[in-house]
Amino acid sequence: MLLPVIIAGGTGSRLWPLSRELMPKQFLKLYTDSTMLQATVQRLQGVNAKTPLVICNEEHRFIAAEQLRQINKLDHNIILEPEGRNTAPAIALAALTALNQGQDPILLVLAADHVIQNNLAFHQAITIATELATAGQLVTFGIVPTAPETGYGYIQRGAVCQNTEQAFYVSKFVEKPNKDLALQYLSSGQYYWNSGMFMFKASIFLAELRKFRPDILACCEKAIANTESDLDFIRVNSGAFAACPAESIDYAVMEKTNLAVVVPMAAGWSDVGSWSSLWEISDKDAAGNVHLGQVFQHSSSENYVFAETGIVATVGLQNAIVIQTKDAVLVAAKDQVQDVKNIVQQLKNAGRSEHFIHREVYRPWGKYDSIDHGNRYQVKHISVKPGEKLSIQMHHHRAEHWIVVHGTAKVTINEQEQLLTENQSVYIPIGAVHSLENPGKIPLELIEVQSGAYLGEDDIVRFSDRYGRH
Amino acid sequence: MLLPVIIAGGTGSRLWPLSRELMPKQFLKLYTDSTMLQATVQRLQGVNAKTPLVICNEEHRFIAAEQLRQINKLDHNIILEPEGRNTAPAIALAALTALNQGQDPILLVLAADHVIQNNLAFHQAITIATELATAGQLVTFGIVPTAPETGYGYIQRGAVCQNTEQAFYVSKFVEKPNKDLALQYLSSGQYYWNSGMFMFKASIFLAELRKFRPDILACCEKAIANTESDLDFIRVNSGAFAACPAESIDYAVMEKTNLAVVVPMAAGWSDVGSWSSLWEISDKDAAGNVHLGQVFQHSSSENYVFAETGIVATVGLQNAIVIQTKDAVLVAAKDQVQDVKNIVQQLKNAGRSEHFIHREVYRPWGKYDSIDHGNRYQVKHISVKPGEKLSIQMHHHRAEHWIVVHGTAKVTINEQEQLLTENQSVYIPIGAVHSLENPGKIPLELIEVQSGAYLGEDDIVRFSDRYGRH
Repeated sequence: MLLPVIIAGGTGSRLWPLSRELMPKQFLKLYTDSTMLQATVQRLQGVNAKTPLVICNEEHRFIAAEQLRQINKLDHNIILEPEGRNTAPAIALAALTALNQGQDPILLVLAADHVIQNNLAFHQAITIATELATAGQLVTFGIVPTAPETGYGYIQRGAVCQNTEQAFYVSKFVEKPNKDLALQYLSSGQYYWNSGMFMFKASIFLAELRKFRPDILACCEKAIANTESDLDFIRVNSGAFAACPAESIDYAVMEKTNLAVVVPMAAGWSDVGSWSSLWEISDKDAAGNVHLGQVFQHSSSENYVFAETGIVATVGLQNAIVIQTKDAVLVAAKDQVQDVKNIVQQLKNAGRSEHFIHREVYRPWGKYDSIDHGNRYQVKHISVKPGEKLSIQMHHHRAEHWIVVHGTAKVTINEQEQLLTENQSVYIPIGAVHSLENPGKIPLELIEVQSGAYLGEDDIVRFSDRYGRH
Repeated sequence: MLLPVIIAGGTGSRLWPLSRELMPKQFLKLYTDSTMLQATVQRLQGVNAKTPLVICNEEHRFIAAEQLRQINKLDHNIILEPEGRNTAPAIALAALTALNQGQDPILLVLAADHVIQNNLAFHQAITIATELATAGQLVTFGIVPTAPETGYGYIQRGAVCQNTEQAFYVSKFVEKPNKDLALQYLSSGQYYWNSGMFMFKASIFLAELRKFRPDILACCEKAIANTESDLDFIRVNSGAFAACPAESIDYAVMEKTNLAVVVPMAAGWSDVGSWSSLWEISDKDAAGNVHLGQVFQHSSSENYVFAETGIVATVGLQNAIVIQTKDAVLVAAKDQVQDVKNIVQQLKNAGRSEHFIHREVYRPWGKYDSIDHGNRYQVKHISVKPGEKLSIQMHHHRAEHWIVVHGTAKVTINEQEQLLTENQSVYIPIGAVHSLENPGKIPLELIEVQSGAYLGEDDIVRFSDRYGRH
């Protein structure tokens, strides 16, 4: 049995404005109706594997949990990193967690934000890798290159493996090449793209890590020794993990070990590293356009156009990316999308929030969307999932009006409980202790009108919170 | 004394998505902090002229009135056309209105949607034209061409006028030329752009119209014979006006009369006929960009970027137009902006509303913005001007919750009157007769949450309306 380990730690700014720090790429529905994380799990259907371990950042925990819950794969299986330390420590945490549970499974390490179009080829590669990992090798999956890409590292293959002709010993890992070198690599047939996907026995990976980077292993052992059980999460010791050096598995282990083998894979893989790569792998119309949402086009071709809300119209537009979200629009030349990160930096420098957070904000109990605001007031659309409950709370500076527009709410104000249903409203004065719960079987939707001199999210005193957010 | 006659009848789709059928170009702040209509009036400051007569379409009446009120030029001076009939009938209505008031003023006919950057040159041209109009000529203002434009008609000048050397008899009007011809016109120095601005005595224009198009004059005389006085508006007989042929003043009179003279004008004139012409006349940064609103740019040049709400970011974008409004985004190549009308047509064909109306809707009492909607509910932000009042009304299918977030509301529900101020709310059940008024001195802002099975604007029974909208 394989134990899939899914690394969901990125904060990809290259797909802004859809991807934001609090809602990065791996949690978005970029390519299918599932999120990238969900698709990564679903891709394993048919493989003899356990429920995956997912490793993500502390601040994404409720999003990861909700997305796994939606596909019935939430089972106390999310390891939270207090901060990112690159892939070597993340994988060490997963390996140690497995060993702590008295097992020594074969780990299948996957990134949560890749696309694989040919699932059959992917599963075939897994079968080959499983054989090699069982025999004690550290397997890396090498993507058969289809273009002279300068954005990826490459793996040069060595001799063919003894046990199977469908894998090779690793000759060496090479850095991102220039265009000429990439062309040579491509035509030689000896090189693969470094995909960041791996397979090995937990114990063997840890043994190799101890050999080459005992410091990393020591930190991870300390961090995992005192895990706290918190709802669906495995929470590592943040002090110990903070002391851990940040390093990729490639640098820490794969480039140093003698056990590395590469399994070639031609499975329509993409790391969706930019808007242009998303355009490349998406279905296009006759004019080469990808359009999602309410898009109207005239004399336009080879574009990727996404309208989240409202409409987007293009006239005479070629080779461009247009991404419209509730609070930000990006228009970029397709061959310059790598500079989207420059805009993200500009937004940071300007002290704005649009690089960090969407207008719609996810919470463990549901979500809210700020639909209007002005001097001394703010209007939110709040959605509460069935059975969920916001913290018991109080505000010093704002009163709130709640109007239920869908479903049923259980509202408690100063210990007075009442049920409200569609078209009913309630008023929460400044200073009143209140809570909101959806006791029903369908989503609760309500409009909240806040009124007061200060409306910041931090004007909240939490008395009790079932999600541990004191 | 001149009587300015301002033609404000267009429905310009070429500046979509800012310009829409219910809020066309002449009512927008495109170039200055004033709307185009207001700027047209303000441009006459220093000219010895009466309060202008404004001619606009029936459905724009409250917008025109509000904009004139804001600059203290509202004085029962808006002629409403039930439907557009081009410029000859519109000017005839204005001329007849003036004569009916026992006067025979010199009419200065202006379009409400032009930009003139050099006011001094404009006033000088008016001075020259006044002399000629007083002497009985029909004056047209000819724009000294600065480029071989193929989008305008031209006027060929003839001999210099007897009374002034700064004007010419008209040799002939010529249609929009091709590029070669336009180049010839430009280099000859004998041609001017046909600006659509005129000056003449009311009686003389009408005499010429009677000579060449007695049918148009007859219809206009009938239409104006039974004007109804309605608030600030002069409402012509719609049946009589509907029977009037649609014709431009050029075709109907100017190209036929022997009294035509042209006053050349070099005043930085533009008809702002497209997004690219707006880019041309606007102030640009060092990279040739015009940016309005929250705009972030990287490696971008020669663009016109407008962000109404939220932010717009551009990366590697050249020679493009990006217009972001609350419900629609346009991205167009600057040299293909004439095809924006194609998008407008697509929207019409698709049965959408974004070519017709903005998310924010203007009413005589103020405005509302639809900030959220879903199944069985809708949320609006309503703004009521000081002293204004919505009609007394009733809905069969929706209940309403009102929460005041700014100012004071006088609310009457089933003849029960109450005052609500900031942070107070009220509920209006289905079937209740209700009204809303701002009795105060500052704007009233409130959030309305509608709840019900049918939320169309037409679910309204009006019992009384101070704006005549029964």
